Amino acid sequence: MRRLKTLAVIGAGLVGGSFALALRRAGAVSQVIGFDRDAAALERAAALGVIDTTGASISEAAERADLVVVAVPVRAIGSVLHDVALAIQPGAVVTDVGSTKAQVVRVAEEELRERVTRFVPGHPIAGRETSGVDAATVDLFRGARVVLTPTPRTAPDAIDLVRGAWEAVGGRVTAMGAEDHDRIFAAVSHLPHLLSFALVSEIAGRDNAEELFGFAAGGFRDFTRIAASSPEMWRDIALQNRAALLAELDRYGAQLAVFRALIEKGEGPGLERLMSEARSARQAWASGPRHGPPTE
Amino acid sequence: MRRLKTLAVIGAGLVGGSFALALRRAGAVSQVIGFDRDAAALERAAALGVIDTTGASISEAAERADLVVVAVPVRAIGSVLHDVALAIQPGAVVTDVGSTKAQVVRVAEEELRERVTRFVPGHPIAGRETSGVDAATVDLFRGARVVLTPTPRTAPDAIDLVRGAWEAVGGRVTAMGAEDHDRIFAAVSHLPHLLSFALVSEIAGRDNAEELFGFAAGGFRDFTRIAASSPEMWRDIALQNRAALLAELDRYGAQLAVFRALIEKGEGPGLERLMSEARSARQAWASGPRHGPPTE
Repeated sequence: MRRLKTLAVIGAGLVGGSFALALRRAGAVSQVIGFDRDAAALERAAALGVIDTTGASISEAAERADLVVVAVPVRAIGSVLHDVALAIQPGAVVTDVGSTKAQVVRVAEEELRERVTRFVPGHPIAGRETSGVDAATVDLFRGARVVLTPTPRTAPDAIDLVRGAWEAVGGRVTAMGAEDHDRIFAAVSHLPHLLSFALVSEIAGRDNAEELFGFAAGGFRDFTRIAASSPEMWRDIALQNRAALLAELDRYGAQLAVFRALIEKGEGPGLERLMSEARSARQAWASGPRHGPPTE
Repeated sequence: MRRLKTLAVIGAGLVGGSFALALRRAGAVSQVIGFDRDAAALERAAALGVIDTTGASISEAAERADLVVVAVPVRAIGSVLHDVALAIQPGAVVTDVGSTKAQVVRVAEEELRERVTRFVPGHPIAGRETSGVDAATVDLFRGARVVLTPTPRTAPDAIDLVRGAWEAVGGRVTAMGAEDHDRIFAAVSHLPHLLSFALVSEIAGRDNAEELFGFAAGGFRDFTRIAASSPEMWRDIALQNRAALLAELDRYGAQLAVFRALIEKGEGPGLERLMSEARSARQAWASGPRHGPPTE
């Protein structure tokens, strides 16, 4: 990729901060300007050297940039894009890092209007349970998959620039439609989070919750680790990706009903077959390449 | 506890082997005799020094013991107890390590008859994804909870002996009824395993399974780790603890329906409240004392 003159990072958190650190380490950017509506987070990012300068507003940060990365919670992307649209230079490129994409594409079309050709929706598959700019690291995206969901209107040079930036920080970039993205992540990410939240909330609501937790062990720990994730973030993801998530929930409910029937009828061979298929698939997956960064 | 003269371990695997190693390390046993219907596993246990001598049969291993530990899959406990009953000395004590208890108690009553007073049903909450005697370690039970489910017929001195043995290897022993045990573990162990198996089997059965697995990351990895568990073991647990597990499945299904309705109606505050309650409960649990041995 061509070296960027100025990168604007809107949202000085784990993902935005790590992107800035990694892009600079790669020698792919000269200057990083940051903005966060949380002034303390923004100051912290500057103190850590994650950004070079702070913008007084989204517009001020965006107006000088040739690449604007919107690294804020999905529900806030629309209002950020609104301000970005008013400020950016004609040739600048804008991208985001939201975990859902179809809704982001819709919002971007509303907010950016004719500038939407410069917007490349993106989703790096990387995160930690820790958040905030203090957790930012130069290698967060090394080996991580990054999905871009351009539309037919997206300018090819904008896609190339964003792809090049992610590749520069170690990402493995794939492009697909926003709906496909949302269906895939509903299945392998959003649904498991929901299932884990549901289990813990169900147990926590019982009279004997303390006794139950007292006997929970390693399997429970693994299964429920993602129930310690941010409720705000996962509320937003569930609502933004509602249609795909509901479809996944229903598919899952049907599969659970199959398991239930096998157990009720005492059909050991059928139950073992499904469990064996699951184990084989899980083992094949786990023995493959990198599966996201470590947690806890 | 009084020092045991002879411990018989029926089933030379991870749990039986670790129990023998730990009890010897604690200076609580003079001699360990082992039996496994898998001759290679038995020889391996002897070669590793986990057992001192091998029995040619269950009867031969059990007849000299003052404590017999039945460390075989739950479905095999009945037939082992049948042979043990024919061989043990009158004052000897028998225990097991099965993950379900009500069915084991029923089988023990059938097989041991009047000797059932000497049987103390037990369940150490410890395990690894690895299995087999090669994985046995002296500290598998250090800090682990151990549940005993004696019945009104169980002899108090037998309970004391088994409790003492588990405490000698570092276990934290609790006694409760077998039905209570099965309800608790249906909720915090058996159900999560089933949910994890169901998710992976559902995804593995799709035409685009490879694509889906290709985008699965850290959350998926944690959630599905227990889907790599033994299908035979979990088939047996699900069927042995059928009633409690079905009840848990239905409770869980009801809670999932609550989440589903909130998502469908777009009720962000209600969704966030449930997720927040789950996170708080998970965090409180995780910051408490030891939660089972490490996995993977």
